[in-house]
Amino acid sequence: MTISLPPGFAAHTGQIGLRADGPDFVVVAADSPVPAAAVYTKSRFAGPSVVLSRANTSDRQAQAVVVVAKNANVATGPEGAANAAEVVDRVAAALGARPDDIVMTSTGVIGRQYPMDLLRRYLDGFAAPLTGTDATAVAAAMMTTDTHPKVAEAVVAGSEARVVGVAKGVGMIEPDMATMLTFLFTDAEVAPADLDAVFRRVVDRTFNCLSVDTDTSTSDTAAILANGRAGPVDLAAFEAAVDSVALDLTRQIAADGEGAETLLVVIVTGARDDAQAKLVAKAIVNSPLVKTAVHGADPNWGRVAMAIGKCSDETDIDEDRVTIRFGEQEVYPASVDDAGLAALERYMAGPEVLIAADLGIAGGSCTVYGCDLTDGYVRINADYTT
Amino acid sequence: MTISLPPGFAAHTGQIGLRADGPDFVVVAADSPVPAAAVYTKSRFAGPSVVLSRANTSDRQAQAVVVVAKNANVATGPEGAANAAEVVDRVAAALGARPDDIVMTSTGVIGRQYPMDLLRRYLDGFAAPLTGTDATAVAAAMMTTDTHPKVAEAVVAGSEARVVGVAKGVGMIEPDMATMLTFLFTDAEVAPADLDAVFRRVVDRTFNCLSVDTDTSTSDTAAILANGRAGPVDLAAFEAAVDSVALDLTRQIAADGEGAETLLVVIVTGARDDAQAKLVAKAIVNSPLVKTAVHGADPNWGRVAMAIGKCSDETDIDEDRVTIRFGEQEVYPASVDDAGLAALERYMAGPEVLIAADLGIAGGSCTVYGCDLTDGYVRINADYTT
Repeated sequence: MTISLPPGFAAHTGQIGLRADGPDFVVVAADSPVPAAAVYTKSRFAGPSVVLSRANTSDRQAQAVVVVAKNANVATGPEGAANAAEVVDRVAAALGARPDDIVMTSTGVIGRQYPMDLLRRYLDGFAAPLTGTDATAVAAAMMTTDTHPKVAEAVVAGSEARVVGVAKGVGMIEPDMATMLTFLFTDAEVAPADLDAVFRRVVDRTFNCLSVDTDTSTSDTAAILANGRAGPVDLAAFEAAVDSVALDLTRQIAADGEGAETLLVVIVTGARDDAQAKLVAKAIVNSPLVKTAVHGADPNWGRVAMAIGKCSDETDIDEDRVTIRFGEQEVYPASVDDAGLAALERYMAGPEVLIAADLGIAGGSCTVYGCDLTDGYVRINADYTT
Repeated sequence: MTISLPPGFAAHTGQIGLRADGPDFVVVAADSPVPAAAVYTKSRFAGPSVVLSRANTSDRQAQAVVVVAKNANVATGPEGAANAAEVVDRVAAALGARPDDIVMTSTGVIGRQYPMDLLRRYLDGFAAPLTGTDATAVAAAMMTTDTHPKVAEAVVAGSEARVVGVAKGVGMIEPDMATMLTFLFTDAEVAPADLDAVFRRVVDRTFNCLSVDTDTSTSDTAAILANGRAGPVDLAAFEAAVDSVALDLTRQIAADGEGAETLLVVIVTGARDDAQAKLVAKAIVNSPLVKTAVHGADPNWGRVAMAIGKCSDETDIDEDRVTIRFGEQEVYPASVDDAGLAALERYMAGPEVLIAADLGIAGGSCTVYGCDLTDGYVRINADYTT
């Protein structure tokens, strides 16, 4: 599958040498500053890339995104901050852009300085104009431990505008590479305030509903740039298109989670409100006992009940009002006969498992995305030393 | 190691038949009602054993504890509640005790009714007086998936009184058996209100600082009975003895966590207060990336920084004030040379790993106990179906 960037965006990918094989540097740029929205990790150890980019997108405008792969530039002190600023300055100069219109991101090992000799030598030869149009190649160059590039697109209904998204998620081999980076590009014309509001809503119900292993990266960044080439669009149709792309990428990341063999989707309904639904859904999707049961294709609803039960501050949750389903099959309080159990085990051995719980309180709901916990996860993260 | 119960407590262990091999039924009783304190799971799916026992210890008095192993009697509805009450009534009648002086506990699979025919047949033959005095045998009979019995004792300084504790934790083979049950018995004479206050403080800094896998059981119960045979004791000395026994059992449970090969102790100091220290310590001890790094003997302090960083609501945490140690070796912000790294790897391959973080804010501190995440954990919980 090859997906091209929307008109008015161009890409550069290259190999600085942080990784021995393949590209480790990406720039995607618009011709001029365009409306942009971004959300970043809330980590107390956020790196200088995040600090710089958060400042640079605070005016809801950006021209380019930059990715350096294999080194997160996190916990690197004043030297790391100076290095990030230097990369931003040099990329901006090459593009003829302002440094504060650059979204800088970095992903990889924590606690090591950039090899600035390599970066400087590479950037000496980096110059506009950018000529790449292949979003799939961009996604591939961002990968660190992913097993395949993650790219998605949608057309904004009632317009010619497209939304194209790329993401990297968790993969294998290098244990520190759990950073999620995702960038969406659109040629729709959307006012900065609208773009910001739409993007925050979409991120909240897609990427923020994703958990591979409960561990929040120091470098997570999600950004959207809208260059307006396709003209005005219906805002609801635009949000639907952004949502479609973000959801597609979210599912791709969950399914490619470190060691994952099964995509796990958890839907909680009937909650007091959406926040309670999200709390309970995350308790289920993050439970190691639920995740290992999914890995073992075991329709073990007792573990789902346990995970709901451990939300002990939610005193309005009453086991007598709760129902639990695997796929379409209710398993609690209904009891399943042996034929039903055999069917459930076949269902759970498939590539995607849905666990649904209704709390029977009110109308709050949330859907979250995760994966099973496998021997592969342990091996990836234990067998390789830094 | 064989540890005897304090004078004035007697035990019965037997095989009802819930498990094919070995005992699955325990009663430990005092001669008459004695001061008692207990804390229970906060799960919203707490079973009828917990509901009954919580009511029975609300008057800070009890005479006996009962354990039924291999079936948790959780999510079993009115029938399960009636069955629990029947077991309590029959044990009380056999002991000549009041039903509301019985602490009833149950551990095992969720969502199945007790095989009451087996229980009734066994209880028909159960009668006082109890003759057992071996606490180790009691601990062995409580085991479900534990690999060895967990028992500990301490003498109350300045007295003849002892504190003897038994516990079961997580083990292997049956995936739903993660319930923690622990009982402490003492012949010290302690007023009910003092016993309650001491026990809650001790549980809060021992068992409540324990996490094998973040999953809270529906049946957790910790209780202490004090029969007063050894006369009055110094209350501070008593708390020290209870703390010693509870901490010993906590460490035994963590080290025997499902699939565990390494005991992981995390100490956070320099926090705003003890609550913040506990939050950060739990984030570290529960991080799958930290747990797998410990399993791989990888001194990967970047993952510890990540785990601290993800406590994103703690805005007073500043990476510039944080220090991280593995054992005695500072790893952040100090950098470790190759010889130091090799020494760290040897340290981390040992049976117990200490991770210490100082937040540099104020004087709050907390120590928590956990274990590494291994292939064994995944196999135990994925390979066996219910």
